[in-house]
Parts: sequence; structure tokens; C-alpha cells
Amino acid sequence: MATAIPLGALAERLGATVEGDATQSVCGVGTLESAGPGQLSFLANPKYRRQLAECRATAVLLGRDTDCPPGFTGTRLRVADPYLAFARASRLLYPLPPVEPGIDPSAVVDASARVDVSAQIGPHAVIGAGARIAAGVVIGAGCVVGRRVSIGTGTRLHPRVVVYDDCVLGDHCILHAGAVIGADGFGLAWSGERWEHIPQVGRVVIGDHVDVGANTTIDRGALEDTRIGDGVKLDNQIQIGHNCVVGEHTAVAGCVGIAGSTRIGPRCRIGGAAMLNGHIEVCADTQIGGGAAVINSIREPGVYVSVTPLMPFAQWRRNAAQLRHLDEFGQRLRALEQLTGLRDRAAGSNETPEGE
Amino acid sequence: MATAIPLGALAERLGATVEGDATQSVCGVGTLESAGPGQLSFLANPKYRRQLAECRATAVLLGRDTDCPPGFTGTRLRVADPYLAFARASRLLYPLPPVEPGIDPSAVVDASARVDVSAQIGPHAVIGAGARIAAGVVIGAGCVVGRRVSIGTGTRLHPRVVVYDDCVLGDHCILHAGAVIGADGFGLAWSGERWEHIPQVGRVVIGDHVDVGANTTIDRGALEDTRIGDGVKLDNQIQIGHNCVVGEHTAVAGCVGIAGSTRIGPRCRIGGAAMLNGHIEVCADTQIGGGAAVINSIREPGVYVSVTPLMPFAQWRRNAAQLRHLDEFGQRLRALEQLTGLRDRAAGSNETPEGE
Amino acid sequence: MATAIPLGALAERLGATVEGDATQSVCGVGTLESAGPGQLSFLANPKYRRQLAECRATAVLLGRDTDCPPGFTGTRLRVADPYLAFARASRLLYPLPPVEPGIDPSAVVDASARVDVSAQIGPHAVIGAGARIAAGVVIGAGCVVGRRVSIGTGTRLHPRVVVYDDCVLGDHCILHAGAVIGADGFGLAWSGERWEHIPQVGRVVIGDHVDVGANTTIDRGALEDTRIGDGVKLDNQIQIGHNCVVGEHTAVAGCVGIAGSTRIGPRCRIGGAAMLNGHIEVCADTQIGGGAAVINSIREPGVYVSVTPLMPFAQWRRNAAQLRHLDEFGQRLRALEQLTGLRDRAAGSNETPEGE
Repeated sequence: MATAIPLGALAERLGATVEGDATQSVCGVGTLESAGPGQLSFLANPKYRRQLAECRATAVLLGRDTDCPPGFTGTRLRVADPYLAFARASRLLYPLPPVEPGIDPSAVVDASARVDVSAQIGPHAVIGAGARIAAGVVIGAGCVVGRRVSIGTGTRLHPRVVVYDDCVLGDHCILHAGAVIGADGFGLAWSGERWEHIPQVGRVVIGDHVDVGANTTIDRGALEDTRIGDGVKLDNQIQIGHNCVVGEHTAVAGCVGIAGSTRIGPRCRIGGAAMLNGHIEVCADTQIGGGAAVINSIREPGVYVSVTPLMPFAQWRRNAAQLRHLDEFGQRLRALEQLTGLRDRAAGSNETPEGE
Repeated sequence: MATAIPLGALAERLGATVEGDATQSVCGVGTLESAGPGQLSFLANPKYRRQLAECRATAVLLGRDTDCPPGFTGTRLRVADPYLAFARASRLLYPLPPVEPGIDPSAVVDASARVDVSAQIGPHAVIGAGARIAAGVVIGAGCVVGRRVSIGTGTRLHPRVVVYDDCVLGDHCILHAGAVIGADGFGLAWSGERWEHIPQVGRVVIGDHVDVGANTTIDRGALEDTRIGDGVKLDNQIQIGHNCVVGEHTAVAGCVGIAGSTRIGPRCRIGGAAMLNGHIEVCADTQIGGGAAVINSIREPGVYVSVTPLMPFAQWRRNAAQLRHLDEFGQRLRALEQLTGLRDRAAGSNETPEGE
Repeated sequence: MATAIPLGALAERLGATVEGDATQSVCGVGTLESAGPGQLSFLANPKYRRQLAECRATAVLLGRDTDCPPGFTGTRLRVADPYLAFARASRLLYPLPPVEPGIDPSAVVDASARVDVSAQIGPHAVIGAGARIAAGVVIGAGCVVGRRVSIGTGTRLHPRVVVYDDCVLGDHCILHAGAVIGADGFGLAWSGERWEHIPQVGRVVIGDHVDVGANTTIDRGALEDTRIGDGVKLDNQIQIGHNCVVGEHTAVAGCVGIAGSTRIGPRCRIGGAAMLNGHIEVCADTQIGGGAAVINSIREPGVYVSVTPLMPFAQWRRNAAQLRHLDEFGQRLRALEQLTGLRDRAAGSNETPEGE
């Protein structure tokens, strides 16, 4: 499915300087180890430089000043950021499959839906009343698009995506299989005897160039909308609660849960399986480690972590038991410090250095 | 989609006392900040009282004794529990969409299935042999209902729900898109060389008024049934293992995992991303914090937590390293206490105050 | 749906020694408590021996040397491993439903797909161009099988599974509803202003006898393939990132996340909700506890844990606050030890026993 591109043309597109034969073509990509003739590879991390010496690729992307080992005899394309250039070269070599305009005869499209003639509606898709499907949109097999949903230009839904009524998807988004956009938020009131569900009357509004991973769920807002900013990238199996706001160009790795009404700033990076409490704010440019539990708002950009180190079972058992005694440890330390004179007794009774 | 209701009628339905003009109508809800003329808002948390002063809503729900700032000139509906009244008012203003009885021509319904004439079967739905679909049921687009499944009165399945053979759903349940009810439990026996799968011959039996969130999965029992009690509310992306029992009116937030054969009592509240071990019991009225790991049974109602606080990376790195030395800390503390006379040497060798 | 089997024949299939009447038949299984006449039960864990005394099953499987209480009057089938024998007996009593060869008229099968005549293609399934569906395969309702996908002999897809283009499934696999195989990995390059998605040109290649749970997602490789070995068992709601390799006969419980490029050896057991970092290796025969965070490679087989014990809220609050002071605790302990002579002052300044 890859397209062949001459190295000269590729270099021009990437702003690369060519060292070696620019007349050859590449028609695919590979790792330094696996790439063969006709393929392009890249060296972004210097620790793989030894692999470059034995690389059989026709060409490699590498940094402007990176030493190229003499063993590599292919063409060098020198760029400022080899990984970014590789991403762009890959997109040129592996363009998205062409849109095949038309509505599959097995699709069920409401008469009041407006589907652009250049859009592709797959087998068994269902398009609800009043939906608007823009130019170049691809709706995969078995997708269900609710009433009055709006889907912007060039957005692609892989098979079996569900978009509930009234939600809005911007332009050039990609939604993977099984994603569910706009299910009811978890809004409940306790009557004293049972939970009563609160109708969720907000929408989900997704900006442009947003990716949504497989089986990821984004709930509609309770009163206001849930909002996903332009350029946000969401991996698989993520849950985003009602009323959340995710700022532009924030990337969220797989299995993350974001509870309702939380606001995440732009350009954050959230590691896999992190869990964010509801009703908090995370400021712009924050990085959150994998598996972290974010209970309170984060006001300063930085890298935040909360994970417990893995231990062999016997070691864990001994140490984990002490976690219930840490407060007591602090008190015993203080008593010892007072006894030995390392801490003033009077002062000791007034301050609590171990407190938060 | 909201319905207009005169405030007098609304107050009667909610048991509210009216202060102000009861003849006006509302036809929607909003937050104190966003609600405008024709809309209803509410004040449940006193910390938002300042917003009420500038609220432009036609009416607000507020506590019987809550001070209303003079800036608010709309109608006050006084109730015992404004949040609960708001839930109920919202349901009156935003009723569920009416059922449109009939079977979509694209649905595939087995000849032996019994579908009530008042039920709605959406496009591309599949109903298996011997299934029973009661009055007022809505089966969304692309749902797959297995053989001999029973679905009770008024239950609604959003698009793309799968219910495996023989499972039972009660009355007035709501299942969101992508939910999977009755897949095989993870029952395996190790042969010494490979895993052998154990047929899962139980069912999933779900009570009345149960909500199941998007992409939530509930496995069928191995020998007995997996049981979800009346009034249980499950958020998105939850996994419930085989043979579990979830008691009535328990609410479970998103991303929670409950391993097999665990029994949870009634009226529990389980925070997002909590993980419950298998073969344990959680007693009635227990609250479990978000992200908590529940390894052992809980015998006393209360609030339980196990999460590690978030720290900036450098601080976490220094502190997390010590987690492997807590047991040693305890021993060193004891040695110091014995040396300094803070603890009796003989006693010290007999007791282990840091142990569990 | 269970089949009746005479105990003599069953014993022969299981290599069991019969004590009692071998001429009776069983046609189902149950627990020691629930099984009645005509059913088979088993005693694997001696702590349930008391239940055996009152068991009304026609026959039980039990260990070769296990004491059978006199109260039980049914037939005893003595085996080396009662749980394994029970798994096998269950499979004999509850065989998979027979394949019903043929293509449902509502399915959409590309003319270039090769579907074996013995395969069953369910309602509303979609089979892409060039796909190959082997003998005895079952494709459930609403499944979407991409272009050039290969599905091996006897493999069964429950409803609504999606397999993206070019992926490969081996023989005798079972994929549960909502599973998504081959969605794009989360490969992004930061341009300085936005994320650029890197085309994911690898596949997912799944071996033989692999089970995949409901709503589990396995991403396709970036450049190489994501590989799932023979006999791997994956529970529900698991996420496996691009380029991962999961070794043969490894079992992974529900809600586990495995970040990209991680390699897991054969015969590992990974507990529910464990989270594995990307680009690490886990050696063969490793057991990882439920909820564990695996940040670094594991080089030695063993049992590993990282979970924080659950505490009542007030206790947790006091103790969790100290987690930010553990490094300081270590320093204060050392100062006390030096002061009291328990540690040499000069040595104390050179070594850091609390460090990793």
C-alpha cells in the first residue's frame, strides 16, 4: 500500500540535505534492523548508532551533525529532527486510503440527514435524522451516528464507532473502532432509598485533528458540554467523564480515566493508566506519569508521579505492612530527637515537620 | 427536546414551596452561570451562593432555609434537597425520547423470538432464537441479543450493546453503547503445558432500574450466575468478573475492575478506577476511594482509601526509593529506642509493634 | 445445552478411577452446594470437604488420595488434578455450539474474500476484500473483518469484533464481543506545535488457541508486528500497545494495560489491572500481582507486587502524608544513629544505605 517516492523529492518535502544518491526511490519504512533495499529508516536515538552500521536500508534520516558510521553505504537525509521527519515521510509513503464516495446499500441513512456526495458511508452504518456529514468524511462499517450529529470535513470513523445525538466532531479527526462519544455522564442524586439519574443535556464537542483510540469513551456533559480541544490525541480504552475540558494538543495514553468536570490544560502529556479525580484542574504543559493518581489540582507545570515501586512478594509484604505505621514512625523519630537533644523539646511540641 | 412546564405544576410535582411568580414556565435547565430566561437552575452547594445573585434563570431550586441573595429576582422553589429535586425536575423537563414501536426492516429477528408489539427494534439489530423482548423495550441500532435472552419492560439498549445467550435483564434498565453482558468468565485450568478454558455455564442476571455505562463488561458465571441487584448504577469501562454479586443500589464509577466471585453489599459507593480482588466480600454501605486497591474483604462500613499521593518527579524518586526500606526503618527505630532507653530492651525483643 | 455422558465413558476420557456406580450418566456440572442428581461436581480445595458430605451430585471428581466423607453417596471419580479434570469434563458436557455453515443474507462479503464453505458468517457481518476465512470459522453478528485479514481454522469471533486490515488470527482462537484487533498504535511525533501521527504499518499476528476477552484492544505494530503467542489467554478490557510481544501460554487478567514495545515472556501470569510500562521485558514464568505497576524490566522469575494497602480514610490520611517525608526519615534516622554511636560518623557520610 506504500507509494514510491524518489529521495530527492522526499528530501525537498522534508527540508532535508541529501548525502549520497538522491535519484533512488523508497517505497516503505522499517527499523534500522529490519529495513531493506527500497526502504527508509531513521536514527533518532544515538544509542542505536551501531545498528546503523549494518543497516541495509536505501536511505536513513539522521540528525544534521550525527556521525554516520562508515558501514552504512545508503543515502543519508540530514534533518533537524529525525523522528519528526520520519513521521512526515511515513505519511507521504503511506497516505490514508482514498475515500470511496458513496453510501453502501446496506447503510440506513435517515432522509433528513445531509451527507456530502464526497463522503463514504460503509456497510451497515446508521445515520440519524438531521445529521450532517461533511465532505471527505469516512463512516466505517457498523457505525451509528445519532440525530443532529455534525461531522467535519475529512474526519474518519473506523468501524463500530457510536456518536450519540447532538454531538459535534471537527475536521480531520480519526476515531478508532468501538469508541463511544456522548453516552450519558454518571450523574446521580441519592433519594435516600435509590439513585435517580439526572438527564445529561450537554453534548460532546470535539475540535479538529483529534484522534480517539479504540474503545475510548467520552461522556456528554450534564448541563454544559464536554470539550476536547484541537489536536488532542487520545489512545485506547480511555474514559473521559461529563463536563471535562481537555486543552489543545494534550496527549493521553491508554487506560487513563478522567473523572467528571476536570479541566486539563493544553499541551499536557498524561501517561498510561493515570487516574484523574473529578472537579480538578491540571495546568498547561503538565506531564503526569503512568499509573499516577491525581487527586488534587496541579497548578505548576512539571513532571508528576505517584506510583509505588514493584517488589518481590516477600519484600513487599514486609514493607507494605509498615505503610500503616508511617505516622507513628514520625512520632517515634521526634521522641528520639527530643531525648537525644537533636531537637529542642519545646520546639518539638509546637511544630509538626512531618505534616503536610 | 425539553418540554415546557409551568412552575406551579413543577412545584407540585417536586413538593416545593413557591416564592415568586408560579405562573411562568421553564423548558430547560442550566447552571447558575449559564441558565437564562425560561430555564431552571439550582443551588445545592452554598459556596455557589454568590453566583445565584447574578443568575438570570426564570427559577431556582434551593433549600428551605437557604438565604437567597437580593440580586436574584426569579422564582424560588424551596425544597428539602435541591440536588435531588433538580434531578427530578430534569427528568420531567427532559423525558426519555418516546418509544417508536416496530421492528426496523434491516433488523434480523429470529422467528422464535417473542417481541412485544410496543417494543422498538432498531436498524441492524439482531435478536436470537427464543429471546423475549417485553413491552416498551428499545433495542438500539446494531445491538445483538442472544438466544433465550429475556429483557424486561421499558429497558433501553443504546446502540451496539451485546447480550450473550440466556442472560436476563430486568425492567427499566439503561445499557449504554458498547456494553457487553454475558461474555465468558476468565476460567482457566493449567494442564502443566497450557491453559484449558472452563465452559462458563452460568448467566448474568440483572435486576430492575440498573444502568450500565458505555463499554462496560459483565461476565457470565462459571457455574452459578453473576448477579447485579436492583437499582445498581455502573459507569463506563467497568469490568465485572464471573460469579460476582453486586448488591442493590450500589454505585460504581468508571474504570473499576471487580475480579471474579467477589460479593459487594447493597448501597456501596466505589470510586473510579478502584480495583477489587476476587473472592472477597465488601459489606453494605461501604465507600471505596478512587484508585483504591481492595485486596481483602471489608467487614465494617466506612470510607477506605489506598492511593499514593502525587509528587513532583524528583521528590517522588527520593521518597519512593525508601519504600523498599520501611521494614528496616522500623528495626532501626527500635534499636535506637532500646539504646536510648525509650523502649525496654527485653520488651523490644518480644513485641513487634510495626507488624500488622 | 449440555450433553449426557455415562460416568464410565467420562472416566475413560479423563483417566479417572471410578469408585461407585459407573453406569449412571451426568449431563451438567455444578458446585458442591448447587449440584443435584444428574450433575457432576468437583473437590479441588480441601477446605470445601465439608460441603462434599452434603453434596447431592451424581458424581464428583476428587484427588486420588482425598478422603471422601461418608455422607457423600454418589460416584467418586479419582483423578490427579480435580480442577483440570473438571475443566475437561465441562468441555465434554458443554461442547461449543455447532458451526452452522453458510453466510447470512444480511452479511456483506467482498467478492474477493475467500470464505470456506464450512464457515459461518453471521448477520450484518462485513468481510473485506482479500480476506481468508478458514474451515469451521464462526464470524458473529456485526463483526467487521478488514481487507486481507486471515482467520485460521476453527476460530470463533463473538458479535461485534473488529479486525483491522492485514491482521492474522491463528487456529482455534476465541474472540469475545467488542474486541478490537489492529487499531493504530499511539505513535506520535511532536512538531513543536502539534502532534503528528506516525502511520502504523505493522500488523497484529495472533497465534493458535488464543482467547481475547470482551472489549480488549490490541494495537497493530508501528513498523514490526504486534505478536500474541500460541495459547495466550487475555481477559476483558485489556489494552496491548503497538509492537508488544506476549509469549506463549501467558495469561493476563482483566483491565491490564501493556504499553508499547514491551516483551512478555512465555507462561507469565499477570494480575488484574496491572500496568506495564513500555519498552521493558518481563522474563518467562513471572507472576505479577493485581494492580501492580511494572516500571522496569523483570529479569528473574518470581512473584512481584506493588500495591498500597487499603486503610480507613483517617488512617490513610495520617500515613499518606508521611510518604512525602520518607527520604527525610532516612536522614533523621542516620543522624540519630551517628549521634548515639549506632553508626560510625565517618562511614555514615560515605554510604547511603537507604538509597536504591
